Amino acid sequence: MDSELKEILKGIKGFRDFYPEDYAEINKILNIMRDVSTKFGFEEYEGPSLEYAKLIEHKSGQELYDEIYSLVDREKRRLVLRPEQTPTLARLIANQHQKYPKPMRWFSIPRIFRDETPQRGRVKEHFQFNADIIGVDHVGADAEIIALTTQIIKRAGLKKDEFVCTINSRELVQNYLNNLGVENLPDVIRAIDSREKHVQSYIKQDLINKKVEKEKADDLSMIVRTVWMQDPKLEKFSSILKKDSNLAPYVDSLQEIAETVIKKSFKELGLTDFQSDQLYAFSNIRGNPEAFIEQIQNEFDLDEATKEVLDKMNELAVYLKMFGVIDTCIYDASIARGLDYYTGIVFEFYDTTGSVVRAIAGGGRYDQLVESFGGGKIPSTGIGMGETVLYSILKEQGKLEKYKHPAMVYVIPMTKDVTNIAAEIVSNLRDNFATLFNPFGWNRKKQLQDAVTRNIPYVVIVGKRDLENKNVTLKNLETREESLVLISNLTKELKKRFVQ
Amino acid sequence: MDSELKEILKGIKGFRDFYPEDYAEINKILNIMRDVSTKFGFEEYEGPSLEYAKLIEHKSGQELYDEIYSLVDREKRRLVLRPEQTPTLARLIANQHQKYPKPMRWFSIPRIFRDETPQRGRVKEHFQFNADIIGVDHVGADAEIIALTTQIIKRAGLKKDEFVCTINSRELVQNYLNNLGVENLPDVIRAIDSREKHVQSYIKQDLINKKVEKEKADDLSMIVRTVWMQDPKLEKFSSILKKDSNLAPYVDSLQEIAETVIKKSFKELGLTDFQSDQLYAFSNIRGNPEAFIEQIQNEFDLDEATKEVLDKMNELAVYLKMFGVIDTCIYDASIARGLDYYTGIVFEFYDTTGSVVRAIAGGGRYDQLVESFGGGKIPSTGIGMGETVLYSILKEQGKLEKYKHPAMVYVIPMTKDVTNIAAEIVSNLRDNFATLFNPFGWNRKKQLQDAVTRNIPYVVIVGKRDLENKNVTLKNLETREESLVLISNLTKELKKRFVQ
Repeated sequence: MDSELKEILKGIKGFRDFYPEDYAEINKILNIMRDVSTKFGFEEYEGPSLEYAKLIEHKSGQELYDEIYSLVDREKRRLVLRPEQTPTLARLIANQHQKYPKPMRWFSIPRIFRDETPQRGRVKEHFQFNADIIGVDHVGADAEIIALTTQIIKRAGLKKDEFVCTINSRELVQNYLNNLGVENLPDVIRAIDSREKHVQSYIKQDLINKKVEKEKADDLSMIVRTVWMQDPKLEKFSSILKKDSNLAPYVDSLQEIAETVIKKSFKELGLTDFQSDQLYAFSNIRGNPEAFIEQIQNEFDLDEATKEVLDKMNELAVYLKMFGVIDTCIYDASIARGLDYYTGIVFEFYDTTGSVVRAIAGGGRYDQLVESFGGGKIPSTGIGMGETVLYSILKEQGKLEKYKHPAMVYVIPMTKDVTNIAAEIVSNLRDNFATLFNPFGWNRKKQLQDAVTRNIPYVVIVGKRDLENKNVTLKNLETREESLVLISNLTKELKKRFVQ
Repeated sequence: MDSELKEILKGIKGFRDFYPEDYAEINKILNIMRDVSTKFGFEEYEGPSLEYAKLIEHKSGQELYDEIYSLVDREKRRLVLRPEQTPTLARLIANQHQKYPKPMRWFSIPRIFRDETPQRGRVKEHFQFNADIIGVDHVGADAEIIALTTQIIKRAGLKKDEFVCTINSRELVQNYLNNLGVENLPDVIRAIDSREKHVQSYIKQDLINKKVEKEKADDLSMIVRTVWMQDPKLEKFSSILKKDSNLAPYVDSLQEIAETVIKKSFKELGLTDFQSDQLYAFSNIRGNPEAFIEQIQNEFDLDEATKEVLDKMNELAVYLKMFGVIDTCIYDASIARGLDYYTGIVFEFYDTTGSVVRAIAGGGRYDQLVESFGGGKIPSTGIGMGETVLYSILKEQGKLEKYKHPAMVYVIPMTKDVTNIAAEIVSNLRDNFATLFNPFGWNRKKQLQDAVTRNIPYVVIVGKRDLENKNVTLKNLETREESLVLISNLTKELKKRFVQ
């Protein structure tokens, strides 16, 4: 085989081929998303995979736009492969929201695209669950989105000590930055959002300087990032660093490194030393809702606007409690979200077992997005959750079930002259059961062997002699039990067995 | 609103926004495809939306390639948005078929893309059901694919006199063309495949020459095409033409026009007058399998190879009968399929009510495709069926159900102080029922009105006095019946009502 063909056959790096056993795992996750959303009364919608480039330019941050797939169509229009669903959703709402009573609870599971630099574990196309509550300016809606996401994560198999929802308020951060006299808010907010990335990059470069090879430095710096995010003071996870001789030196220095690196990133945006110090201290505030609010009330001189924000965060906690999810929620002043359109409560879900570094899900309130499309004032809140992170966690924890062939029954004509009757039986069985039938002139042994290879639970053997009494043989391939069954009773008999 | 924003808001022409009531209709069709395939023992797979341009260049015909969306990624590679799924499937099989017992029965419902010139009713992105039986060189597999497709079309709501499966053999056509001394087979086969398109273009141009405006000429020529395809001798559908004053003149001339136009398309590819006449006559042969085979046997001097092909077509008919689908099958020598990779039996499904002109589904056997990727000899057969045509037919026939909100229950706290208990009830109900809950401080009347607006079947009213006896009020919004129910019995009571 020539090398070009070989390359083509592999497909594009970062894109995935889903063989049936792979797709069943993905589908399991997607079906949980779909089922839980429906139980919460959400309605499913979809948009096109392609949008005008200008839709995204208007609405997403620069970060997304740098990693976008763009193309020009036959009419010379600049189009993009959607990198997220929110601009599309905002477009749909702006066009038609008059038709729908508020709040609209909508979800979607689009495939979205990012032309990223290849990185371990990153994919360029993935399914991203999106759920939004549209048209209500009430923290109860934010709490419901968090409750819905929590339920999906739990149904997927994570226990309540294996993940956390970190919550903050964009308004809190903005008020704080305004009071601090900081000017270029969007850039500074993105810098806060990138805290852990800055730490990771520093560690990676430091390892490379120490002659660690690039790929290993990649992996190791990822571990440091995970540890630092979960446990910035290294109270629980220092042992993870100690285990690796390259990382052990950071046990004592990581806190100092993080502080230096993060403050530097602030200063590069023009913040003074004083502003950087203050912002760094502020962004480290983290704890359960009550403690978080108390700390901010105690440590800062609050203006009226900030007091109102804290009241709202307090009310959010009431609703989180009402929805039974407060135990997995933490307020964290460093949560900022990279996208520009967020206006209020923002949140990110993380794995806390240390197995996956990226956020499981993230979202927040965007009260002005639809209005910016000329769609009237439609306050909204929502979440995006890729399937990949949830998948990695479940895979790593061994929580994905072994793949099973969908067929429950395999019908075998013993001789060629009964194939017609077998086909009729198959056709009836298929009203109720996934049924395999291979009328390719194979002998009985080959068909039985095929049923065994594929782990089909039951075979129905159609033989001439049994047919004289309108019978077939029903055989359980696991227990090897077999019995004669009237053809007219076959569906009933199989139903009985599958209920057991 | 400025005009650019207005344009962006509409989205790209030819791409569709699926609001919940739209997506429910699409999903109904996709779920039928999924359910029937599973009942036939097919396993679901998926591939990436993007492939290397070279994969498609190698494997699809020029027609597809002219309408492809292509782009260059950050690593300067030429990529395309998949215009069909078969090249991806062939790639997957070539890579991994050793892992899977044969035959593999695989299906997929990818979204595929075509950058077509805008045409009425055409979309640039659609869901396309694909089902393939891989690794068996037996007409039983072709018959099964046809049976599966037939079952899907019937489940979607078409009656057996409302559609037809037209079947041919590429080998039959190739042998015929070889014996006729024709050389550039792929081009000629495409010309046969395009018979009706040539007729349509001629009529359209003729109407424009007669000063009919372009858009109307488009629509009218489409009608002529539909009529001619279903009824080339105008034995049944001439009344459709007579109804329109522009089309009436064609009642007497259509047969002659078709003959001239089609023969001309053959001659343009270098066929002699004799060859064109012969090929035109051959391509008009059409009838039930028995009659079709008989006619060919009677009218032509058959070589051994062609006799073998007819034997195979005869055996196919045996299997079509066995699968109970022979009544909706017609053999038709003009069915050729535009794509180059087909090698044996080919088939196309058409609506026969005259409401939709394009094929509902099409496919065939491609025994050499996987081998051309270096994947060994893997004979395969399969079908592709877009959701759009099926959707148009069902829409036109009024067979799509009215959209219903997914929620079955709506829980209403009568006063703010019972919201917590209501939330607990909601959380329990959601284990079984899609449940709406709007704890936004709305009064009872507003919530009840909301439930009515959304047509939710049941409301649960949580009131302080009822709670003293651990009761809530369960109300059927349609019948207006209401009853006090113990909270602990609520799920049981609702289950009872939904079974009724």
